[in-house]
Amino acid sequence: MPRFTRLSVEDIRFPTSRQLDGSDAMNLDPDYSSAYVVLHTDTGLAGHGSAFTIGRGNDLVCAAIKAHEHLLVGRTLEEFIAHPGAFWRRLNSDSQLRWIGPDKGVVHLALAALVNALWDLYAKTVGKPLWRLLADFTPAQFVACVDFRYLTDALTPDEALALLQPLEATKADRIAQLEAQGYPAYTTSAGWLGYPDDKIRRLCREAIAEGWNHLKIKVGRDLQDDLRRLAIIREEIGWERKLMVDANQVWDVPQAIAWTRELARFQPWWIEEPTSPDDVLGHAAIARALEPLGIGVATGEHGMNRVLFKQLFQARAISFCQIDSCRVGGVNENLAILLLAAKFGVPVCPHAGGVGLCEFVQHLSMVDFIRVSGTWAGRVCEFVDHLHEHFEDPCRIQRGRYLAPTRPGHSTEMRAASRAEFAFPAGAAWSR
Amino acid sequence: MPRFTRLSVEDIRFPTSRQLDGSDAMNLDPDYSSAYVVLHTDTGLAGHGSAFTIGRGNDLVCAAIKAHEHLLVGRTLEEFIAHPGAFWRRLNSDSQLRWIGPDKGVVHLALAALVNALWDLYAKTVGKPLWRLLADFTPAQFVACVDFRYLTDALTPDEALALLQPLEATKADRIAQLEAQGYPAYTTSAGWLGYPDDKIRRLCREAIAEGWNHLKIKVGRDLQDDLRRLAIIREEIGWERKLMVDANQVWDVPQAIAWTRELARFQPWWIEEPTSPDDVLGHAAIARALEPLGIGVATGEHGMNRVLFKQLFQARAISFCQIDSCRVGGVNENLAILLLAAKFGVPVCPHAGGVGLCEFVQHLSMVDFIRVSGTWAGRVCEFVDHLHEHFEDPCRIQRGRYLAPTRPGHSTEMRAASRAEFAFPAGAAWSR
Repeated sequence: MPRFTRLSVEDIRFPTSRQLDGSDAMNLDPDYSSAYVVLHTDTGLAGHGSAFTIGRGNDLVCAAIKAHEHLLVGRTLEEFIAHPGAFWRRLNSDSQLRWIGPDKGVVHLALAALVNALWDLYAKTVGKPLWRLLADFTPAQFVACVDFRYLTDALTPDEALALLQPLEATKADRIAQLEAQGYPAYTTSAGWLGYPDDKIRRLCREAIAEGWNHLKIKVGRDLQDDLRRLAIIREEIGWERKLMVDANQVWDVPQAIAWTRELARFQPWWIEEPTSPDDVLGHAAIARALEPLGIGVATGEHGMNRVLFKQLFQARAISFCQIDSCRVGGVNENLAILLLAAKFGVPVCPHAGGVGLCEFVQHLSMVDFIRVSGTWAGRVCEFVDHLHEHFEDPCRIQRGRYLAPTRPGHSTEMRAASRAEFAFPAGAAWSR
Repeated sequence: MPRFTRLSVEDIRFPTSRQLDGSDAMNLDPDYSSAYVVLHTDTGLAGHGSAFTIGRGNDLVCAAIKAHEHLLVGRTLEEFIAHPGAFWRRLNSDSQLRWIGPDKGVVHLALAALVNALWDLYAKTVGKPLWRLLADFTPAQFVACVDFRYLTDALTPDEALALLQPLEATKADRIAQLEAQGYPAYTTSAGWLGYPDDKIRRLCREAIAEGWNHLKIKVGRDLQDDLRRLAIIREEIGWERKLMVDANQVWDVPQAIAWTRELARFQPWWIEEPTSPDDVLGHAAIARALEPLGIGVATGEHGMNRVLFKQLFQARAISFCQIDSCRVGGVNENLAILLLAAKFGVPVCPHAGGVGLCEFVQHLSMVDFIRVSGTWAGRVCEFVDHLHEHFEDPCRIQRGRYLAPTRPGHSTEMRAASRAEFAFPAGAAWSR
């Protein structure tokens, strides 16, 4: 079994701000970036992982990844495989690093990159795509991936087991369904704030032609502008398709309620990130106010950790749970959130986009379908058509659905040529 | 008026782990550290600020401070003085850096250091200690220090004004009281987990002799050990003095309730950090369970931002609000929390210790007394007798009270000789 020898860390940035791809009411000029790590072993096999940032500060996450090196070097993949939850807890429990989190911000983004690299290595070692590796676990193995610290008031290991066991008998059917049909997705490609109206119209038509039935747009900068753009989009996509709106945290609670009420005539399926991602009670207040209008509250891409998600569920603050593969502490912590979501009956609709987030998080939606929630009804995984060409195993979309990955690993490996070209600041993309 | 020219950042670490000073159930071997910044200006005047960490990762906070430099250089102290809340918001709103927070973790610790340096410069420029500068503001000036983003569902600027105005008439009396008597404090010096029983006994006797009436100890590693140490301490200090216990986040919610019930016979005044600092609803559940026992819940030293505190108040989750001068975004955000605490009627009992936290936070307790809560009844500010000798304006304790600082500034400036000796890793303290 491979023994970990060292981490190499790369600061990779794409100059996306030049096109306003990814612009929204909060994030005006993002340069989509990746704090990228390769976990090297003595067998030559390596695990790849990364965290997503939008430019400045990517170097901080890279340094935070490196700061965890002493917790890995000398240990083996076998130890991780034997007790993934306990191993995760050790990685997350360096008391000195914990002080500058805990479980949040730069150090937790770093943990996400490392943990996903561990899973990539594990999946490559056993020759399976990550979703399949996790699908093939016994319920006990699956539960052993989770660190239940701070969760037992909402979910105990025994309750988690009891959630998983009834779905075992029908697991194979869902694997076959997934492999045949792919996992349902939605597109955000048409809806960035920086795009002119004619581009929005064109992108809507292209999306329909490609088979999309769920579209999301950005709102929150200017109400009249939002109303005009929503009218254009409803004209183009009709009223049967689902339309979601995303405010990217710009509002206070009363403003979120008032503004979303104005948008209600366009029947948004959900309002995403209406306020601070930390405000559980604020989201709950917004949810109560919008319930009568049939608009659900969605959040999670900035949800810092499992404790935040636990509370969002306990307070009935969200109707859609938007996990992110690299914001919480990687695969293990996301499995905890999938279990919590199942316990509280909230559908998981992951956040994606960025650099590789679609590639990474699709595995988790598939695992959720196969063995945690056991359904894809009312669930969609985000898709944004950016930067996939840089990955060795890019996600594949067909008629608005993610096809199940077939290559071993977590789909986290970026092409070496891309990593060289977009290395910051020395790569060709930045020096020319 | 001074114009900001550059930041110089210093990684300063004290090898405290060699003595087990500061050891608790979560933090086993802290090296008390300071991510230290000097904000230079074109007049020669400089502001000093720092964030406290416990070792590894201090370099990350230093780098995060430096990453904010472009937001300050070229701007003037006059701009800050004119609109401190708006200036704070700009410093906190670099959209790319915001992504790796927001308002939490490494980037927010960095903001704390910078913001406190701004206030140090401001107070030095006008020749007043910080507490006095803030005491002399008009209510409108005071409210203008706060960024109300994400707070208006709990507190609007008008409500804040209405809280402050009735206390104006009696402000001068409280200033005189403070200058005559000092602000009430409590000591944690006797209670670290790493100390043997005879040392605890000796430290209790010393504390009583010095006039302390409030003592705190660490708990949560081993129940029998906690019971033995609490018995020793009650033997030494009697039952009139207040005794507080601090679990440093080691418990889940059900365990926190069960364990604290076992300690109840020693009549702790509060249980501090019983679980994850992010768990508003968990703290509320613990508070409900312990209410009948007369034990209050305290937390806040790891409370990441004003949104977290807002919710702790809204959920009635805490009986004691433990602000920290360097965990949230510095003075401005702490003024927001003081106002929220006053609105919800929760006493503020700051966290201190670390490197300079006593020096810094005493100013905020004094401001709270003079013009926000208007009282010190039921309030104590933490004191730990570590590392004060390294500061230019060390806090002064007399008979268990903080004497009001008289030197201009925020008491944030560390002696140059100390900064040189404990510079990491090149200083004499580390190289010998």
